[in-house]
Amino acid sequence: MRMSEFSDKQRLAYCGAMTSDNATPTPAPSASFAAIQQLCAADMAAVDAVIRGELNSDVVLINQIGEHIVRAGGKRLRPLLVVLTARACGAGNIDVATRLAAVVEFIHTATLLHDDVVDESSLRRGRQTANALWGNAASVLVGDFLYSRAFQMMVGVDQMAVMKLLADTTNAIAAGEVLQLLHMGDPDLTESKYLDVIRRKTAILFAAACQLGAMSAGAGLSVQRSMYNYGMALGIAFQIADDVLDYAGDVGQIGKNVGDDLAEGKTTLPLILAQMRASAADVEAIRSAVRNADRLALSNVLDVIRSTDALDASLGRATDYADQATQSLPALARSASFDALEALARYAVQRVS
Amino acid sequence: MRMSEFSDKQRLAYCGAMTSDNATPTPAPSASFAAIQQLCAADMAAVDAVIRGELNSDVVLINQIGEHIVRAGGKRLRPLLVVLTARACGAGNIDVATRLAAVVEFIHTATLLHDDVVDESSLRRGRQTANALWGNAASVLVGDFLYSRAFQMMVGVDQMAVMKLLADTTNAIAAGEVLQLLHMGDPDLTESKYLDVIRRKTAILFAAACQLGAMSAGAGLSVQRSMYNYGMALGIAFQIADDVLDYAGDVGQIGKNVGDDLAEGKTTLPLILAQMRASAADVEAIRSAVRNADRLALSNVLDVIRSTDALDASLGRATDYADQATQSLPALARSASFDALEALARYAVQRVS
Repeated sequence: MRMSEFSDKQRLAYCGAMTSDNATPTPAPSASFAAIQQLCAADMAAVDAVIRGELNSDVVLINQIGEHIVRAGGKRLRPLLVVLTARACGAGNIDVATRLAAVVEFIHTATLLHDDVVDESSLRRGRQTANALWGNAASVLVGDFLYSRAFQMMVGVDQMAVMKLLADTTNAIAAGEVLQLLHMGDPDLTESKYLDVIRRKTAILFAAACQLGAMSAGAGLSVQRSMYNYGMALGIAFQIADDVLDYAGDVGQIGKNVGDDLAEGKTTLPLILAQMRASAADVEAIRSAVRNADRLALSNVLDVIRSTDALDASLGRATDYADQATQSLPALARSASFDALEALARYAVQRVS
Repeated sequence: MRMSEFSDKQRLAYCGAMTSDNATPTPAPSASFAAIQQLCAADMAAVDAVIRGELNSDVVLINQIGEHIVRAGGKRLRPLLVVLTARACGAGNIDVATRLAAVVEFIHTATLLHDDVVDESSLRRGRQTANALWGNAASVLVGDFLYSRAFQMMVGVDQMAVMKLLADTTNAIAAGEVLQLLHMGDPDLTESKYLDVIRRKTAILFAAACQLGAMSAGAGLSVQRSMYNYGMALGIAFQIADDVLDYAGDVGQIGKNVGDDLAEGKTTLPLILAQMRASAADVEAIRSAVRNADRLALSNVLDVIRSTDALDASLGRATDYADQATQSLPALARSASFDALEALARYAVQRVS
C-alpha cells in the first residue's frame, strides 16, 4: 500500500527556480498548484513553444482561434501530467514528452471546441467560447484541424504504441461524450453509469497523458500501466470536484456559470447523492429540474444539495479516487516530480474547499 | 501522353459477374457507373462488412447513426477508388485495401456529419441528415467517433506511411473547410482560390484513396504518386460537376435541393464564370445574392447562368480535369480495374448531362 508507506513522509516544496529534478527539494507544509507549475515552468515553456508552432496555418481564422486558445491557457493540467510523469520516470531528454504534451493539449482543446457546440455554453475558462465568438461552424472545423494536427504530430514521433494509445483514447472520449448526451435530461443516471461517463469523457485522457510520459521516458509496461491507473483515478477525482464546483463555485473561481450542469439537464454526482438522501418531494424537485434543464430551479436544488450534504459526500468520493491515484503510482525513486504527482492528487480535491 | 496513346483503344465492359481482373473483358460502347460497381461488387461487399463491424459500439446512439449512414450508402466512390486502384496495381490479397477503403469512408462520413452542422442543411443523399434527426450535438460527436475509429483501424494496419498520408489528408480537409467557411457570402472568390478550396476539402481525399490502393498493393512511390495525382484531378472534376448539378439537377438526381450553395452564400465555379461573362447589372445581381445568401434570388441567378452558358463552361473545366486524371494514371498492365479508373474520369462529367 503506497499510501501508508509514504503517508507521513516529509513533504517537498516545488518552489523557486527548481525546474530540474536534480535540484535539492526543500520541505514545505503543503504543496500548492502554483508550486507544481513552477517546478515544471521550463518544460511547460517548451510545450507552449511546440503548441504555438504547430497551430500555425496558412488559413488565418485557424491562427486566430488558435491564438485565442493559447491565450486562454487554462491550467494545462494534461500536458503538465505528461512532463511530470516523464520526469518522474527519469526522462533525461524531454523532447518527445514535450511534443506528446502538446498533442494531448490539442486533443483536449479539440474536445473543448466540440463540447462548446454540444453544450452551447458561452463562457469557458472565464472567457467567451470560440463558438460564441466565431460560431458553431468554426468550432467544429477548428476542432477537426486540431485533432488531425495532433495525429500529424504523432506521426512525427513515429511510435505505433503512441498512435494506438491516443486513437483508442480519442475514440473512447467520443463514445463517452455521446453517452453523456444520451443522458441529458435523465435524472435516473446511476452513480456507476455516471462514473462510466466521466471515466470515458475526462479521466481517460488524464490516464493517457500519464502513460505517454512514462512511454517517452522509456519506462516498462508495468510502470506505464501504473501511471495510466494513476491518471485515470486522478481524472475521476478532478471531474467529481469540477461537478461539485458547478454548484459551489463562483464565476471567478471556476470560469463558468454556477448551475450550468443543471441548465443543461446534466445529472452529476451531487444530484445523484442528494437524491439518495432527500425527501420524496425534494427528490421530485431535482428530477423535474433535470428533466426540464431548468436553471430557474437552481436555488431550490441548491437548498436540497445543502440539506443533504451532497457536496461533502461527493468530495468524499473524490478523495477516495485521489487516494487511489496515489496508491497506483509505481514504486519509483523519490523526486520532486514524483512528489508533485502525489501533490496533484491532493490538489484535485483541496482546490474545491 | 496517355490520353492520345489510348484514345481509340477498345472500351471494356464491366458488366455481369466480373468481380476479378482475371475475367476476360467484353467490349461495350461506354462504361456506366453501374457496370463499374458490378465489377467491384465482391470487394465492396467486403468493405461493407468491415464498415458494419467497425461501427459497432456499446453506445446505442452510435449504432443507430452508424446504421443510418450505412443504409444511406451513397455511391461509396472513395472506397471504390481504394479497391479499384489496388486491383489495378495488381493486388492479389485485397484485405488491407478493404480495411483502408472502410477507413476512407469513415473519414468521409465524419466530414459529412460535421458539414451538416456547418451547413445546417437538412437533406443529404435524398434523406434527412443526421443532425436534422438527432441534432447538432450528435452529428459532431458521432463524427468524432468515426474519425477516431478510422485512426484505430489504421493502427490495426500498422503502416506509418498510411498513418502519415491520412493524418495529412484529414488536416488538409479541415483547413479547406475553414477556408470555405471564410469565403461564405464572398462573391469575390477567384477561380484559383475556388480550386484551392475544392482541392483541400474534396479532391485530396480522392487522391489519398487512390494512393492507399496503390500502397496496399505494394506499388512503388512513383506509381503511388501517379495514382495520387489521378485521384486529385478526378476529385476536382467530380466537385466541379457537383457544383454544376447544384444549379442544374433536381432533388431526385442530386439528393439535395437545387440552389443550396446559393442559399449558403457559397460562390462556386458556375457563379465565378457567370460573373466573368455577364453584364454589370447581372454581375451585381449575383454578388448581392451571394452576399445575402438569398435563395429567393435563385431564379434570377439561374437566368444569368443560362444566358452566360456558365454551366457548360464549368463542365468544360471539369472535362479538362477528367482528362488530366486519365493522363496521370501510371503505365500499368491493362485490366478491367485500370479501365474502370479511366471510365470513372469520364463518368465524373458525363453524369451531369
